[in-house]
Amino acid sequence: MWRLYQFPLCPFSRKVRLLLGEKGVGYELERENPWAQRDDFLDMNPAGRTPVIEEPDKGLVIADSRAICEYFEETVDSNRMIGGSSAYRAEIRRLVAWFDEQFYGDVTGPLMHERMHKRLVHRQPPDGRVLREAMKLANTHLDYIDYLIDHRSWLAGSTLSLADLAAAAQISVADYLGGIDWSGHEQTRAWYAMFKSRPSFRPLLSERMEVVKPPAHYEEVDF
Amino acid sequence: MWRLYQFPLCPFSRKVRLLLGEKGVGYELERENPWAQRDDFLDMNPAGRTPVIEEPDKGLVIADSRAICEYFEETVDSNRMIGGSSAYRAEIRRLVAWFDEQFYGDVTGPLMHERMHKRLVHRQPPDGRVLREAMKLANTHLDYIDYLIDHRSWLAGSTLSLADLAAAAQISVADYLGGIDWSGHEQTRAWYAMFKSRPSFRPLLSERMEVVKPPAHYEEVDF
Repeated sequence: MWRLYQFPLCPFSRKVRLLLGEKGVGYELERENPWAQRDDFLDMNPAGRTPVIEEPDKGLVIADSRAICEYFEETVDSNRMIGGSSAYRAEIRRLVAWFDEQFYGDVTGPLMHERMHKRLVHRQPPDGRVLREAMKLANTHLDYIDYLIDHRSWLAGSTLSLADLAAAAQISVADYLGGIDWSGHEQTRAWYAMFKSRPSFRPLLSERMEVVKPPAHYEEVDF
Repeated sequence: MWRLYQFPLCPFSRKVRLLLGEKGVGYELERENPWAQRDDFLDMNPAGRTPVIEEPDKGLVIADSRAICEYFEETVDSNRMIGGSSAYRAEIRRLVAWFDEQFYGDVTGPLMHERMHKRLVHRQPPDGRVLREAMKLANTHLDYIDYLIDHRSWLAGSTLSLADLAAAAQISVADYLGGIDWSGHEQTRAWYAMFKSRPSFRPLLSERMEVVKPPAHYEEVDF
């Protein structure tokens, strides 16, 4: 049985969980707080980041969320998430990098630092200026997603792909942390509402991070 | 003909150039300063980052260095750089992420900001404290590479792979910017000396970034 080391608000672990859910791969969850820098965890991943996935029976450990996703895409044929022509796969991977790096760097990362790390680890209040900047950039990012959905059925093109999962993972954490203002983003809202009702997504939405509470609309499919 | 948008000290463009060189793919260079935020460049890549590669005859544009590498790995069979079993490919991709994110975030990124951006764009002197911290972390990173080479022929295992190219790309930029102290890292030095003599690497080493000069040993195979 695969064992996934993660914590509830890790957007990269959420991306992996959505992929495993869509592909029908079973796994158990192992709670890991990467900020604790546990020795056994650092042995598995010197980068000290979640997610890490382990298959003890095979003696296999995989670190890095994109390496994990590519691994399961290569080894499990069902429901291709990096499928299609090489050019289409390049567009999927460009968008995954966009959400993993740009959206995370602009929005999810600062929100997690201010509203989660500071509370859990440093016991400090959030910096309102950083929060406002992250929410302003979230709005720009939703404009870009609106634009993509205006031109395509799904974010990368005509099929559901890892690009959608990477986007939904980041947005869901930002939304949990109160960083998303949905008004004026009807295209992205409709895409995300559909996502929320997928079986791969429901378990994630019901989980809670200790101390930090999501807004009332967070789990609702109709929001 | 492929056209690669890049600037001489972009480590991610260097990784792509090493891959194209190893695979024997021809391309021409197009100089792009991403900090200029040129409109036509942002149209090709909303992230505003190099590298971007274009094949005008095919109407194809690919952004993001990992998406570009995966594309050429899928479409050009010669000299596989993400080859082997799925588990081995996962280890290659983990290390590529390590060098692209950890090494870049700890070492190359701060060095580029202090010694290149500040000089070229902001006309400010570098911050000595940031430089010292980057060089200290560079030393820790070289320790890790020493450890890998003590246990393996190449960074990911028994074959030359994209992990080696990603590492050499970051190290070469850090070395250009005077951030690498080679003393005490004989394993990594021997690995890098061999790399410097590869035909895919020679053209990169002879290029210069305006205003910023590399140290005397930078281009030497015997350093």
